[in-house]
Amino acid sequence: MRYHIIFLKPSGKKIEAPQGERLLPILLASGVRIRSDCGGRGICGHCRVRFLKGAPPPTEAEAHLLSPEELEQGWRLACQHKVESDIALWIPPFVEEVSQEKVRQTFQPIFPLRPKASLIPLFVNQGGPNSALEKLKDALKEEIKPSLSLLRQLPGALEDGKGSVTFIRVGRKTVSVRPGSGNVDLLGLAVDVGTSTLAAYLLDLREGKELGAKAIANPQISFGTDVISRITYVRENGKKGLEELREAVVSGVNHLVKKLCLKAGAVPQDIVHAVFVGNPTMLHLLLGIDPSSIGEAPFAPVWKEALSLRAKDLDLMINAEAVVDLLPFVSGYVGADTVACLLACRLHEADGSFLLLDIGTNGEIVLGIGGKIFACSTAAGPAFEGGRISCGMPALPGAVSHVSLQARGLRWEIIGEEKPRGICGSGLVDLLAILLQTGLVNSSGRLVSRPGHFLSSHIVSYGNQLAFQIANTVSLTQRDIRELQLAKAAIRAGIEVLLEYAGGTPGEIETVYLAGSFGSQMRPESLVRIGLFPKDFVSKIRPVGNAAGLGAVIALLDCNALEEADEITKRIKYIELSRESLFSSKFVKHLHFPN
Amino acid sequence: MRYHIIFLKPSGKKIEAPQGERLLPILLASGVRIRSDCGGRGICGHCRVRFLKGAPPPTEAEAHLLSPEELEQGWRLACQHKVESDIALWIPPFVEEVSQEKVRQTFQPIFPLRPKASLIPLFVNQGGPNSALEKLKDALKEEIKPSLSLLRQLPGALEDGKGSVTFIRVGRKTVSVRPGSGNVDLLGLAVDVGTSTLAAYLLDLREGKELGAKAIANPQISFGTDVISRITYVRENGKKGLEELREAVVSGVNHLVKKLCLKAGAVPQDIVHAVFVGNPTMLHLLLGIDPSSIGEAPFAPVWKEALSLRAKDLDLMINAEAVVDLLPFVSGYVGADTVACLLACRLHEADGSFLLLDIGTNGEIVLGIGGKIFACSTAAGPAFEGGRISCGMPALPGAVSHVSLQARGLRWEIIGEEKPRGICGSGLVDLLAILLQTGLVNSSGRLVSRPGHFLSSHIVSYGNQLAFQIANTVSLTQRDIRELQLAKAAIRAGIEVLLEYAGGTPGEIETVYLAGSFGSQMRPESLVRIGLFPKDFVSKIRPVGNAAGLGAVIALLDCNALEEADEITKRIKYIELSRESLFSSKFVKHLHFPN
Repeated sequence: MRYHIIFLKPSGKKIEAPQGERLLPILLASGVRIRSDCGGRGICGHCRVRFLKGAPPPTEAEAHLLSPEELEQGWRLACQHKVESDIALWIPPFVEEVSQEKVRQTFQPIFPLRPKASLIPLFVNQGGPNSALEKLKDALKEEIKPSLSLLRQLPGALEDGKGSVTFIRVGRKTVSVRPGSGNVDLLGLAVDVGTSTLAAYLLDLREGKELGAKAIANPQISFGTDVISRITYVRENGKKGLEELREAVVSGVNHLVKKLCLKAGAVPQDIVHAVFVGNPTMLHLLLGIDPSSIGEAPFAPVWKEALSLRAKDLDLMINAEAVVDLLPFVSGYVGADTVACLLACRLHEADGSFLLLDIGTNGEIVLGIGGKIFACSTAAGPAFEGGRISCGMPALPGAVSHVSLQARGLRWEIIGEEKPRGICGSGLVDLLAILLQTGLVNSSGRLVSRPGHFLSSHIVSYGNQLAFQIANTVSLTQRDIRELQLAKAAIRAGIEVLLEYAGGTPGEIETVYLAGSFGSQMRPESLVRIGLFPKDFVSKIRPVGNAAGLGAVIALLDCNALEEADEITKRIKYIELSRESLFSSKFVKHLHFPN
Repeated sequence: MRYHIIFLKPSGKKIEAPQGERLLPILLASGVRIRSDCGGRGICGHCRVRFLKGAPPPTEAEAHLLSPEELEQGWRLACQHKVESDIALWIPPFVEEVSQEKVRQTFQPIFPLRPKASLIPLFVNQGGPNSALEKLKDALKEEIKPSLSLLRQLPGALEDGKGSVTFIRVGRKTVSVRPGSGNVDLLGLAVDVGTSTLAAYLLDLREGKELGAKAIANPQISFGTDVISRITYVRENGKKGLEELREAVVSGVNHLVKKLCLKAGAVPQDIVHAVFVGNPTMLHLLLGIDPSSIGEAPFAPVWKEALSLRAKDLDLMINAEAVVDLLPFVSGYVGADTVACLLACRLHEADGSFLLLDIGTNGEIVLGIGGKIFACSTAAGPAFEGGRISCGMPALPGAVSHVSLQARGLRWEIIGEEKPRGICGSGLVDLLAILLQTGLVNSSGRLVSRPGHFLSSHIVSYGNQLAFQIANTVSLTQRDIRELQLAKAAIRAGIEVLLEYAGGTPGEIETVYLAGSFGSQMRPESLVRIGLFPKDFVSKIRPVGNAAGLGAVIALLDCNALEEADEITKRIKYIELSRESLFSSKFVKHLHFPN
């Protein structure tokens, strides 16, 4: 086989690649971070790389997705080409940081501190011919099933502690036995595996105290931004692809563990209990389980119930014997993250009627009414997080987060007061609301050029479409408006289908919980103006931050929460929207914006 | 740090070693096979290597253990020197093969075929949004606790088998699920981890048929031939030493697995159940658990009960999820091998009184009388297996296996009809019996020179002691006789102590089971002549071959056997001889040979 060299700028890295191999997988496999939202199908246009010399002729997809100037400069899509000769590429920087909003909790439910993990100091009488294990059981006054690791640790712990040991267990499972009855740290890790973001929390399980929280982009983003493109990547690349995705997310979690422990002055070895939540596909990938069946009707996951696994088997860099609990799912698209949100908001105990929306890359909707709970998931897409929007970005410094209408024009706020780099979800919703209000976008979603309008100077031509430009670097194109329109229609239709199933009306709903970064920045008035919610929701909206992560934290701190999660899951009636003609009709109806 | 090179002949291998390190551990760590019976304490004299130039001055231990000629030729003990410069060594060959007697079964008990491992062909209906696991449970019509590996295999198995899968479990544990309902092999592995020998059996669990059996020397022999020297090695080398011993035995078992599978045309992946027996120290080392506490009073092991582990955690090269059962122990010195012997001989069901002796490197004795079972262990040493005997060797080709008295001299049989290379246990016992009978060894065990005796030409001087020479290469020295004398006194005293505890007499014993290679070659008359047994045992002796290995095989083939092993273990009353003054007095008494 012939090999070629790929030189990468600015890193200076060299990759050896077999003749004829596809460029994108080669780059990804070599650890190059490139965004690819469509799994290499030439649709998203994100896997841009610049050929520093000898760029190949552009493909049809590239002619469509890249401007003539870009093509001339050597920009191509890595998914469109094979390795046919030595190549020199410029790889644009990959922004990995994510908003710390993802982990900031503004919402604090009350729950008892009774962690599943516990420390038991023991004095073990070492005399007599009984086995060390029998002596341990005598001191503990109960029967235990020994693990290999316990047996390996026991003799050393007894010797070093001169009979005084600390027995560490999670539920009925023994994680470790250590010498002495001194100050042993008992730590827990809660992780929300989002399609876009990994958020992790380090907990002191004895005090019930958060020692740190941190979020990074899910490293799987290089393989596609949404659930479907990652499933497609597994389908197309088989076991190797599955393993790549598994390694990507596990390395992300391990990175978070390292950072959190470093900052808290803690030792990863002391993390003896971990709880993971996330959508079903993300948890399948975390465990290295093929999620393909979730990708097509009837969207069945491989498992749904809560799982209790061992850190070692997942390659997590915490205590090898640590218990890793995964919360249960409701269906292939209503996952452990949604269950965790319900747990965090104590909605399973709620008397009144409620609506919970967790709008991330997918949108999960839960309706509680008359003691019954209904749930559905809409493929709303990541538009409300700034995804698939030309100038969209997460709520990071440089993002336009709010836009308001002034007498003579617009005013906008930028996170961190810098120059605008892009616009995040809340800014998008504000801007769209203003455009609807001022008639620059009509009810069918068309951006209309209105000469003489006081904002008409903002309307510019953007390739073959119109756009509304608020700054040199930030504009909202006609295509962006379509993305928002589709997302809002899907969510609103989902809410109405659930109400129909429950036999309820919007008026009956007492509280609308908005989970995720989506909720924390949004202006309720703008959400209503674009028609995502009916009018009377304005006063009912309650942002709950990363409730999924909080639910995972609660499962660490309250051993009953795991059982509650099971009960919640069993109580939820799942509605599959793709089989509902009612959904289609409501979706089409809500493609229109309110007048 | 400065490094030196060690050149090894005849292998041509080069080892880099830090200045000042001890030579023996360096050689062992580099995979050089050297016998060391005393764990590097300069006692056994077995770790001989020849310095090809610049041999260091001999130590006191070497002056004692090596002849002047050997010292002059550059022979030294590897345990006595450090690496102080570049060294060139000649390493004598290490004989690894062991007698296949170790695995040949002459004794076949009857037991039902109801293996713990089973195959369940299923058709899984794949329609609907239920999870794959729920669909599997529906087909199986029972609840199962899924393992990570089951979940990883399930989607592929369902897809490849188009819903038809074979579910493989051991007891309640799911080992694997495979596509199709075709002809899946269901294999089991039984291993007897002896101090000297690893014996393994490959079983077809569906047919209850043995597919092969093989034995090799326990590779840990390089670290010391007996239990105590291996414990000492762990004590002196800590975790690193423990890991070396663990790796040695695991590599030995994996070697056996490879050979057995190769010969049977089987795939190691198809081995889903394994049963291990062995003495407590060997099983501690197999699991990587510090056995130090067994090495000193009160000789407590780390655990005693039966364990059920996972192949992956033990680094066994069989199915990663295979269930590995270890039979329980009675005490730190009466192990799972003894329990397996009782199981194999169905002695827990026996009505009559019996004695069971498993004489290997240690000697375990079990007495059943009046429905009660008593057991003890004697540090008899390996003399009856040819260990610590100057010309001793296992029952391999070249070993004198039997000696008989003729009118004018001696007649001897050599295994394989070759030239004698040494003498094995049965030959030793025959020879000693003849020497006692002819008065050349007196009742105190002294070899006496009797001018004019028809065998007097065999008596030669051997260094500073007398020896009885039967061929140029084979002689029995005074020191050898002392070893046999100590071993026989210990076993005989052990038998008498047990009888005393049980309130029984030798006459009541109906059958004397001799387990191990020890029993299969011995002449009962010779055993009685040297005083190992009282006279009336001659007609009661029944060799049962490697009953420990057979017990492990039975535990594979009969799921009830594991429970029976537990019951047996609980029924046995263990007598610690080291605390018995009665043992000391009987031991001293039986140091004398019968007149």
